[in-house]
Amino acid sequence: MANETLTGVKGFKVAALKAGIKASGNLDLGLIVVDGPCTAAALFSTNKIVSPTITVSKAHIKSGKARAVFINAGNANSCTGQRGLRDVHRICDQIAKSLNIKKEDVLVCSTGIIGQFLPMNKVQAGIKKGLSQLKPSAKAGRDLAKAILTTDTKPKSAFRQIRLNGKTVTLSGITKGSGMIAPNMATMLAFITTDIAISAPLLKRAIKETTNQTFNKLNIDRHNSTNDTALVLASGLAGNKTVSTQDASYQKFANALHDLCDDLTQQMALDAEGATCAITVKVTGAATAKDADQAVRAIVDSPLVRSAFHGADPNWGRIISAVGFSGAKFKAEKLSCKITDVFVYKNARPAKFNAANLSKKMKAKQWTVEVNLATGKHQDFCYTCDLSEEYITINADYHT
Amino acid sequence: MANETLTGVKGFKVAALKAGIKASGNLDLGLIVVDGPCTAAALFSTNKIVSPTITVSKAHIKSGKARAVFINAGNANSCTGQRGLRDVHRICDQIAKSLNIKKEDVLVCSTGIIGQFLPMNKVQAGIKKGLSQLKPSAKAGRDLAKAILTTDTKPKSAFRQIRLNGKTVTLSGITKGSGMIAPNMATMLAFITTDIAISAPLLKRAIKETTNQTFNKLNIDRHNSTNDTALVLASGLAGNKTVSTQDASYQKFANALHDLCDDLTQQMALDAEGATCAITVKVTGAATAKDADQAVRAIVDSPLVRSAFHGADPNWGRIISAVGFSGAKFKAEKLSCKITDVFVYKNARPAKFNAANLSKKMKAKQWTVEVNLATGKHQDFCYTCDLSEEYITINADYHT
Repeated sequence: MANETLTGVKGFKVAALKAGIKASGNLDLGLIVVDGPCTAAALFSTNKIVSPTITVSKAHIKSGKARAVFINAGNANSCTGQRGLRDVHRICDQIAKSLNIKKEDVLVCSTGIIGQFLPMNKVQAGIKKGLSQLKPSAKAGRDLAKAILTTDTKPKSAFRQIRLNGKTVTLSGITKGSGMIAPNMATMLAFITTDIAISAPLLKRAIKETTNQTFNKLNIDRHNSTNDTALVLASGLAGNKTVSTQDASYQKFANALHDLCDDLTQQMALDAEGATCAITVKVTGAATAKDADQAVRAIVDSPLVRSAFHGADPNWGRIISAVGFSGAKFKAEKLSCKITDVFVYKNARPAKFNAANLSKKMKAKQWTVEVNLATGKHQDFCYTCDLSEEYITINADYHT
Repeated sequence: MANETLTGVKGFKVAALKAGIKASGNLDLGLIVVDGPCTAAALFSTNKIVSPTITVSKAHIKSGKARAVFINAGNANSCTGQRGLRDVHRICDQIAKSLNIKKEDVLVCSTGIIGQFLPMNKVQAGIKKGLSQLKPSAKAGRDLAKAILTTDTKPKSAFRQIRLNGKTVTLSGITKGSGMIAPNMATMLAFITTDIAISAPLLKRAIKETTNQTFNKLNIDRHNSTNDTALVLASGLAGNKTVSTQDASYQKFANALHDLCDDLTQQMALDAEGATCAITVKVTGAATAKDADQAVRAIVDSPLVRSAFHGADPNWGRIISAVGFSGAKFKAEKLSCKITDVFVYKNARPAKFNAANLSKKMKAKQWTVEVNLATGKHQDFCYTCDLSEEYITINADYHT
């Protein structure tokens, strides 16, 4: 089988190991290293309180280049003040020195519990060991996808190839994230490697546009994390003519990136904390893009709606009442709602439907809710999941 | 024991009975009737989609008067189109005719499942029976407090007396509401009787100001219902000089009304769906009232934060990160947080505390979280509760 991990892309080596940061003793430290010069772009959490990993990575990636990425799970190194910041610099210094690269070419991502200092002895020993184990192998790639997880139950990865100027261009991505996830920022951690030759500004544009339509469309608990990062590294080794204008080649790459990230986003919805199903909530017929967004969010933000999803309960009154308080404009006498492909509310009246049959359809792994506001042509969507007892159990017990 | 129910106030009779609207067969229909002319004021849901009960009651109460209130639980008569509206008019007609009062003096409140038509045969038979059973007794008052409930586990009532011009003025209130509750509107149903003599504009001002500081400070699941109503009826039989200016007598009454409604609000927080504890979330040191409100809401709206509350887990990182994405201004290096009376985060650094001891304090029935934004003098608060597995179970199974 071909290597469909991050290392299945020309130019990348990775390592993953058990550094002892996670109490479980599982894989918890990872490194991604590029052989030569590499274009890089990233989006970060818009939370006003961010981990110092983000402060430093943001500064380092301004150059549009990167050579190495440090990742740890189990500890977010967030709300840790000056000491937390010093720890991030120590990580960068150690990696830069060992690889003989500039400190500014090192990026750092942490995820896990907020408010605890990194166990730096373990981290530094882990980095040393990891640097000696860097490999372009599929096994190393698969291990890395595991090392970045926290409450996720399974690794998430995707792989795509396109042809540009007669050359094969490869994109590969992994993500983690199953709680503390809300839209309109680069939610969770995503690491994407590609061998495309592309300019830094266009790589930035591609990851930004893609994130808006994929990762930022995922809502699990409307809680924006302090550590979210979506990072793409382009080694430029595919042999294509460097993409430096928004031409057909750029569009082809952007489409593949969108497809890759959409795949990863849906994998995250399905593996959200306690989730038993992933639901796409669509709002159509909105007067403006803002109205569509407001209505979608009111629905996916409601624990009441998402509890009904969990019960496979076609309780459309909760969906419609969420639209009612969303602030979105709608034509009161035309408002309609479909759950899966079944109308439950049509032209502002309860529709007749077989509740038992519909409930059965809602027990599928993935399904759709659609609300038509009947006022215009704008539409929007979010991926979400059901809210289960398991979500509470996970989050009541995560810390202590 | 004195009658401390709605009928413990001069001028009011009530009835409560089992009309067969609730599947459980419990009390589900109530009537409140005033002997003579009565001043009335109410606040209603700000959801754009409201039950026709609200449309009609809003129109009827414009006069500042009312004589009878119909209440049913088990069916919200919401999203029921023209037929739902006709049913409300039929209820008003029946009661007005039987009591020989104006139709406009009848108010209607419904609560329960959205999107189903009222079983009008049962409702009309219930009204007939109820009108024949109207009593000023404590038992009837206690039964009414039960008849308005849906997923609540216990009735909520409060009673206060003050002296005005040498006369005793009595206030009595009941509420229902344990889910679909968010602040900034008259959340849930509240019925308050008082015998104060007061002008309609001042009664309206008093219930509005009080609701803003009590009922609207309760957040259970940020889902605004389509049927919320807070109603106060003043029979004017206390014998006090009619309160018609904002003098000391008005203030005394307003204070008592606030005290009564605050009591009811805290009872609702404690009886929220699945709740094991009620938490007051306070934000101090805000630059503006809006900043304080934004920070409070971000905290109480987060299922992540409220799951940690359920686990008695002093996971302050979730609270601080919610402040971070709330949009509220704060002084980054001075931000602090207390859970109960214990600092967990001080001047933007983790504070040292005994987690086991603090967790024990979080197992109390009622406790407080306080965040200081360190930017100004404004403050705000919300009552909320923990988010438990039980909340999900209740709401996954409510409909089907």
